[in-house]
Amino acid sequence: MKLIADNLRITKKNIQNALKACDPKPIQELVKQCVEKGAWAIDVNTGPLTRSSEKGMAFFIEAIQSVTDLPLLIDTSNPVAMKAGLEAANNKAIINGFSLEPRKLEQILPLAEVYDADIVGFLLYPDSRIPKDKAERFEIALELFEQAEAMGVAKERIIIDPVVPPLAWEDGIVQARAVLDVIRTLPDLLGSPVRTIAGLSNLTTGAGDKVKKRLVEQSYLAMLAAAGLDYALLDILNHETVRAARTSGILAREELFSWGIVPG
Amino acid sequence: MKLIADNLRITKKNIQNALKACDPKPIQELVKQCVEKGAWAIDVNTGPLTRSSEKGMAFFIEAIQSVTDLPLLIDTSNPVAMKAGLEAANNKAIINGFSLEPRKLEQILPLAEVYDADIVGFLLYPDSRIPKDKAERFEIALELFEQAEAMGVAKERIIIDPVVPPLAWEDGIVQARAVLDVIRTLPDLLGSPVRTIAGLSNLTTGAGDKVKKRLVEQSYLAMLAAAGLDYALLDILNHETVRAARTSGILAREELFSWGIVPG
Repeated sequence: MKLIADNLRITKKNIQNALKACDPKPIQELVKQCVEKGAWAIDVNTGPLTRSSEKGMAFFIEAIQSVTDLPLLIDTSNPVAMKAGLEAANNKAIINGFSLEPRKLEQILPLAEVYDADIVGFLLYPDSRIPKDKAERFEIALELFEQAEAMGVAKERIIIDPVVPPLAWEDGIVQARAVLDVIRTLPDLLGSPVRTIAGLSNLTTGAGDKVKKRLVEQSYLAMLAAAGLDYALLDILNHETVRAARTSGILAREELFSWGIVPG
Repeated sequence: MKLIADNLRITKKNIQNALKACDPKPIQELVKQCVEKGAWAIDVNTGPLTRSSEKGMAFFIEAIQSVTDLPLLIDTSNPVAMKAGLEAANNKAIINGFSLEPRKLEQILPLAEVYDADIVGFLLYPDSRIPKDKAERFEIALELFEQAEAMGVAKERIIIDPVVPPLAWEDGIVQARAVLDVIRTLPDLLGSPVRTIAGLSNLTTGAGDKVKKRLVEQSYLAMLAAAGLDYALLDILNHETVRAARTSGILAREELFSWGIVPG
């Protein structure tokens, strides 16, 4: 299970300020920390970047690339910003991502082929509603693959994100289990291997004390790893969560165990 | 996922001494602590009790019952001691357990019917070897159920223990995953619900620092819970492991989530 830093987000005040001031330092500092903690890739969550989206995205990508050559997940719903990010990227770039929403099918999905990039596909309805069970998620997954094929995007490029729900939702815990089930059984349904990605931060959105949130995240991470998850998007600066994720990844994947490979 | 205390073991010096001196206090104190920590049941691991097995087992059971009415798992390979334990038990008693070993099939399995008790069945070969993969475990499970039926023991009484291996074994990590797979898929194979039990202590047997052992245990517990495990046998006095087990049990089973049900 590869760990992707979700730390770089436009919702953080200092990152907003860095963008406004065209000051790459806060971004570089944050990215350096993520690299130090062993992130496999950096998610670049710029938001829609409605004003000067091309310039804004290029600023982010260049700031990051000045300190690391890790892969970048370009995480925006704005097709113009996405294209600008892919243009600016020298590092390996992953499009994060598309869904059945018509604008994304038409304007984001084709970029995977044009820029020779992997692309995350969200298991969401066209209006961004979350499907209500495993069967609905499978139908959406099949539809995503069909749409990709129609656009000339190879199925091997698709990384499925089953969209982890907040536990605070009325049926969040049931949906969280459906997500595990989908990750585990999707390759059988499709008859071929398929990579999966999941973001952890949604799970514990809302009230709840820190210790409990950490416990819940760590348990769910182990369950995701056992289900076969390929990429976990998480707070790479949270030492305890990362340690739990790496340990779970070892138990879920390694063929040989030794205490030396468990993080201390 | 119900938590069973594995703390009462004859291998502990003070428990050995308590037995020798016929002094119930150390046993009572330990059991009281286990009850306080919310154990669902107490595993009474007396070892084979080769000398004065009936008297020894009765002493244990009576000491425990003087401080709790929790269910007891009577954990001995000695049929005479097992019978004495079942005789002495007023609390609900579970036989822990039988396997395909001829002496256990002949002398321990029938006690389930005689004493109206649930019984743990180990997925082991008659010579106590551990099966090498999932398919072998299934074959042994089917054989255990057949033997039980032949002895007039209802299949609903059987609780399957797939026997968690030490990770330190050459293929321990692969076997540990096979155990998860068996727990998850056994009900489908048998075409009916089946309860499962797993002991956690074997997993981290041998060298390895405490922090790493705890991490590995917590990850594996979450995986066991997600696989559908019914009973986890563990050190109920280890606060962090128990907290992780309860949190994982909630994520794996509950229909409604609230932060109030997560242990702090």
